[in-house]
Amino acid sequence: MELGFIGLGKMGMNMVTRLRRDQHRVVVFDRSTEIIKQAETHGCIGASSLADLVGKLASPKTVWVMVPSGVPTEETVQAVAALLQPGDIIVDGGNTRYHDDVRRAEGLKKKGIRYVDAGTSGGIWGLQVGYCLMVGGEKEAVDHLAPALTTLAPPKGWAHVGAVGAGHYVKMVHNGIEYSMMQGYAEGFELMSKSDYKLDLARIADLWMQGSVVRSWLLELAASALKDDPKLEHLKGYVQDSGEGRWMVADAIEKDVPVPTLTTALFTRFRSRQEQSFAEKMLAALRNAFGGHAVRR
Amino acid sequence: MELGFIGLGKMGMNMVTRLRRDQHRVVVFDRSTEIIKQAETHGCIGASSLADLVGKLASPKTVWVMVPSGVPTEETVQAVAALLQPGDIIVDGGNTRYHDDVRRAEGLKKKGIRYVDAGTSGGIWGLQVGYCLMVGGEKEAVDHLAPALTTLAPPKGWAHVGAVGAGHYVKMVHNGIEYSMMQGYAEGFELMSKSDYKLDLARIADLWMQGSVVRSWLLELAASALKDDPKLEHLKGYVQDSGEGRWMVADAIEKDVPVPTLTTALFTRFRSRQEQSFAEKMLAALRNAFGGHAVRR
Repeated sequence: MELGFIGLGKMGMNMVTRLRRDQHRVVVFDRSTEIIKQAETHGCIGASSLADLVGKLASPKTVWVMVPSGVPTEETVQAVAALLQPGDIIVDGGNTRYHDDVRRAEGLKKKGIRYVDAGTSGGIWGLQVGYCLMVGGEKEAVDHLAPALTTLAPPKGWAHVGAVGAGHYVKMVHNGIEYSMMQGYAEGFELMSKSDYKLDLARIADLWMQGSVVRSWLLELAASALKDDPKLEHLKGYVQDSGEGRWMVADAIEKDVPVPTLTTALFTRFRSRQEQSFAEKMLAALRNAFGGHAVRR
Repeated sequence: MELGFIGLGKMGMNMVTRLRRDQHRVVVFDRSTEIIKQAETHGCIGASSLADLVGKLASPKTVWVMVPSGVPTEETVQAVAALLQPGDIIVDGGNTRYHDDVRRAEGLKKKGIRYVDAGTSGGIWGLQVGYCLMVGGEKEAVDHLAPALTTLAPPKGWAHVGAVGAGHYVKMVHNGIEYSMMQGYAEGFELMSKSDYKLDLARIADLWMQGSVVRSWLLELAASALKDDPKLEHLKGYVQDSGEGRWMVADAIEKDVPVPTLTTALFTRFRSRQEQSFAEKMLAALRNAFGGHAVRR
C-alpha cells in the first residue's frame, strides 16, 4: 500500500526500512534532510515538507506519525490534518496518552479525517523481529491500514483491540507490566550480586533462559547486558520513564484498581533520579530528633 | 548413569520418565506402591523401601531426593544418609532453604557423604521442555551427576552455580522474580479487565507474545488461562506460596537490599488468603472514629 511517514528516529527509520521490504510505497519526512536521504537509500520517497509529503500521496491518503509523544506528536498531527481531506487517515504510532487520542479523533472527525492509534512495541529489535502492534480506531480505517500493519508486525503480531484510544491504552498497560517485570529482575539480580556465593550473574541469566519459569525476552536482554558488563560498572542507576507507567497508575486510581507493584516500580525510577532524597533526609532528622541517632551531614 | 530416585510426585514422575529416555538406570521409591508400578512402566526399577533402593545401587551410590521441602525432605535425607557409605552422593532436587543445605552438607561430610542441591524449574512442562537446573555442591560430586543433569535439562539448561546451597539460593531468587513478574501481569490484566474498551484479554496476551517487550513464558501461560476462562470466573483468587519468596525477603533484610516489588507480591498472596483483613477493619474503625465515616458491619 501507500503510506506517508513522518519521523525517522530510532523506531521510524527501522519501520520504513521494514515497510520497504514488502515494496510498500513510502513517502517520508523528517526534520533532518540527512535522515531523509538515508531513508531514500531504502527506496523511500523523500519529501521536503509536510505539504510536499501530502502532495505525493494518492487519496485516501494515509499518514503515519512517529515522533516523540506529547507536544511534538500533537503539533504534527494538527499540521498534517490541516493538509488532509475527508476520508484521509492519520496514524499515531507513538506513545500517546489514550485520552489525547480520543480528543484528537473527535476533532478530526468534524473534518471527516479518520484517526488510528497504533501502540508499537519491539524497540530497536523490531526491524529484525517485527513490531507488536496494538491498534485502536474505526474498523474501516484499520482495514485500510492492514497491509502495512501486516508487514510491520511478526506473524499474528498486530490486532485491532478496540475503538480509538484502545491501542494506546493496551500499550500503556503493556509498558506498565514491563516496569514491574524489569523491577522484579532488577531486585533479584541485586540480591544475587550481594551473595557470598560470588554468583556469575550473566551465566545465571543465560541459564534461566533454558526452560525456567522466568524466561522472557527481557531476561535475554539482561543476560546480554550482564555479559558485556558483569558488575554494571559502566552504568549509573538513573532511570527515565516516558509516561506510560504514571498514566497507568493514574488510570488505576481512577478505576479503584490496586497496582502496587507497578507503583513501586515507577517510584523506584523517581528515586533513581534523585542524588539525595528529601524524604530520606526527613527520616534521618526524625530519627535523630527522637532517639538522638547519629546523622551524616 | 545410575541413580536412585525418591519421590514420584508431579515433578518426580516426569523427571524419571525423562531420565529413562536416555536409558539411565533409575531405581525408584515412593510411599505409594501404585506410583512405583507406574514408574516401572517407564523402565524404572521399583524398590520396596529406602534400604532396598540403596541395596540396588552400585557404589558410589547417587540418590536424588524429590519430596516436599521442609520436614519430608529433611527426614528422607537423614534416613537415606544412614544407609549410605563414604563417597556416596545425596541430591536434594526440591525447594530447600539454602541454610538447610549448608547445615546438612556439614553433617553428612563427617560421614564422608557428599551433598548436592539442585534447584529445579520448569514445573509440569519440564517433561517436554526439560528442567532448568541450578546446582550447588563440590565439583567432583556435580561432575559425577552431570550425565543425569544433561538428560534432565534442555540444551545448556543446567549449571554448577557455586558451593553447597548455591543451587537452592539461585532457585530462591528465581522464584522471587517469578512472584514479581506474575504480580506485574496480574495488575495489568486486572486493570484491562476494568476498561470501558471491553478488551479481549486472551487475544491481547496472545498478541503480546508476538515480538512485544513483555513476551515471556509466563505470558504464554496467561494467554492459555484466559483463553480457557476469559473472565477467570472458575477460579478463586487464593494464592499459596511455597516459601522461596519469604526466604528471599528475609535474605534481603539480612543483606540490607531493598526488594519492594517482591515484598509487595508476597504480601499480596498473604492478603489473598484472608476472607477479611484485620488491618482493613482497623482502617474502617479509625476512619469512623475520627471522621464519622460510615462503616459496614
